[in-house]
Amino acid sequence: MTSGFHVAIAGATGAVGQEIMAVLQKRRFPVRELTLLASSRSTGREMRFGESTLTVKEMTPEAFTGVDIALFSAGGARSREFAGHAVAAGAVVVDNSSAFRMDPDVPLVVPEINPEAVKEHKGIIANPNCSTIAMVVPLFPLHKAFGVRRVVVSTYQAASGAGAAAMEELLEGTRAQLEGRDFTPTVFPYPYAFNLFPHDSPLDEDGYCEEEVKMVRETRKIMGDDSLRINATCIRVPVLRAHSEALNIEFSREVSPQEAYRVLQEAPGVKIFEERENNRWATPLDASGGDPVLVGRIRRDTSQPNTLDLWLVSDQLLKGAALNAVQIAELL
Amino acid sequence: MTSGFHVAIAGATGAVGQEIMAVLQKRRFPVRELTLLASSRSTGREMRFGESTLTVKEMTPEAFTGVDIALFSAGGARSREFAGHAVAAGAVVVDNSSAFRMDPDVPLVVPEINPEAVKEHKGIIANPNCSTIAMVVPLFPLHKAFGVRRVVVSTYQAASGAGAAAMEELLEGTRAQLEGRDFTPTVFPYPYAFNLFPHDSPLDEDGYCEEEVKMVRETRKIMGDDSLRINATCIRVPVLRAHSEALNIEFSREVSPQEAYRVLQEAPGVKIFEERENNRWATPLDASGGDPVLVGRIRRDTSQPNTLDLWLVSDQLLKGAALNAVQIAELL
Repeated sequence: MTSGFHVAIAGATGAVGQEIMAVLQKRRFPVRELTLLASSRSTGREMRFGESTLTVKEMTPEAFTGVDIALFSAGGARSREFAGHAVAAGAVVVDNSSAFRMDPDVPLVVPEINPEAVKEHKGIIANPNCSTIAMVVPLFPLHKAFGVRRVVVSTYQAASGAGAAAMEELLEGTRAQLEGRDFTPTVFPYPYAFNLFPHDSPLDEDGYCEEEVKMVRETRKIMGDDSLRINATCIRVPVLRAHSEALNIEFSREVSPQEAYRVLQEAPGVKIFEERENNRWATPLDASGGDPVLVGRIRRDTSQPNTLDLWLVSDQLLKGAALNAVQIAELL
Repeated sequence: MTSGFHVAIAGATGAVGQEIMAVLQKRRFPVRELTLLASSRSTGREMRFGESTLTVKEMTPEAFTGVDIALFSAGGARSREFAGHAVAAGAVVVDNSSAFRMDPDVPLVVPEINPEAVKEHKGIIANPNCSTIAMVVPLFPLHKAFGVRRVVVSTYQAASGAGAAAMEELLEGTRAQLEGRDFTPTVFPYPYAFNLFPHDSPLDEDGYCEEEVKMVRETRKIMGDDSLRINATCIRVPVLRAHSEALNIEFSREVSPQEAYRVLQEAPGVKIFEERENNRWATPLDASGGDPVLVGRIRRDTSQPNTLDLWLVSDQLLKGAALNAVQIAELL
């Protein structure tokens, strides 16, 4: 532990924080020292990292002293409160919240797409929204090859996107229903067992929820093209940790499914996952625990020219959050 | 029981068959006599209908003697095998399977939309696919008012669409997962607990599954407009009995959300279900057990002109099957 980086995880006890620790190890990130930070509620908790047992410390302005890279995953309010302190202490912040994503001074990075943007950072690099990451990983190579004009996307988002407590609420609410017990949800404003609902982030004046707006704006920023036209409907489904998305993609010219498959076969971070002859496609369980965005069911939209449908599934906690954050750190 | 109709339910022990019995009672359908038919496996089973206890009989060619109206919900193969016998015995068949839906001699009826088509019947009237019914109930009044040009629809389909055994598989598979037991699915080709998957009906040469093709063809037939352009992605989600759908609807002119709400407020079979100020929208649990198709979240698609997004949820067993079938019988 004499060479490498002093890494801090802000929000270490959350669903993403725990995945970040696993990803750092799996990818053998050169960690010289690891500082685990969380709210005072979790202070003192012990967590394993490889051979070591680390004690979670309280996130304070001083906690970032000596830190080289601070991976934030503790919600937007914490990021806004503490990221500046981390930068002032000399750390580079990779922030998983939405706090800085649309800030023109903050690069918004998916390493497979715009790694060069990392260089522009002024202390903070933002990790995109999980639904956005899942979509842009296959969309960008298609855009480069054929020119995407418009995307209509419907999401099937897992509990993990709202954190460990949401996953627990899905499990506990389902258990209660199967046992005929009452259960009052506290994380979501809807019953979640065997149910689904539109994403509960705040609405804008057009009636889109924040999650949907993120998929539009962040995609444009990451792909560097403000002319991209995107329409999103974001739905939370009773699935634990992988997001699925149905994409209808209009290109600027006719594109055959075969051409699209050829591009995606070579695309970083993408795995074609299907057995067409067996009518077998990617599901959240197939994607859970894996790095690539699983893509398939590419078919010609017979309702208009130049348009393809595509199905994708991606582990929300990995590529949607922890993996992408660590990949950004690797670029530094 | 001296006036009214002799009604037979073919497939009485299935999920839809049982709902048909409940709907007949709830709507006080004039039943003079009720004959319950099923495969030999269920023969002899006793079922309650109001004050009576009825014994399920085996479905045979002779079982339809004296029957006025035969409500079929026993799968396409049974319909193809027995509907002709029922018609020969003098019954009018209302068939819930896909066997005859696209037959030009068979009306495909949603009573709120094309009740007049019933008159053209030659013994068989087809009940549309459940996802199609949910979509056309609000789509048709919008089409009449504003002219629909193209629809991109993603479905979130419940277990009930595949019958009572599928609902049981969802419950049992989930219970097993929560208890850490192994569970091998037999109804679906995927694990279903906390998982979702593309609809497993057979693919056509374009890569669309049958369910998706039904949503295109049946919608055109019911709405009487072969120029309608529809693109569907059908996904099975771990929900028990209501289908949800995210629609992106392009009109032939600019339509404001307010205009669309105004039309749908007056539309038969539709209920506007939302509390926009509370960010509260329809869910499968809200729709379960209810007759109307719940509609809301109408918003302008900012990605192209003349286009709105709309969210709907509908009880698959009621409006998607049993209710629509009984409504057709009421027209007779």
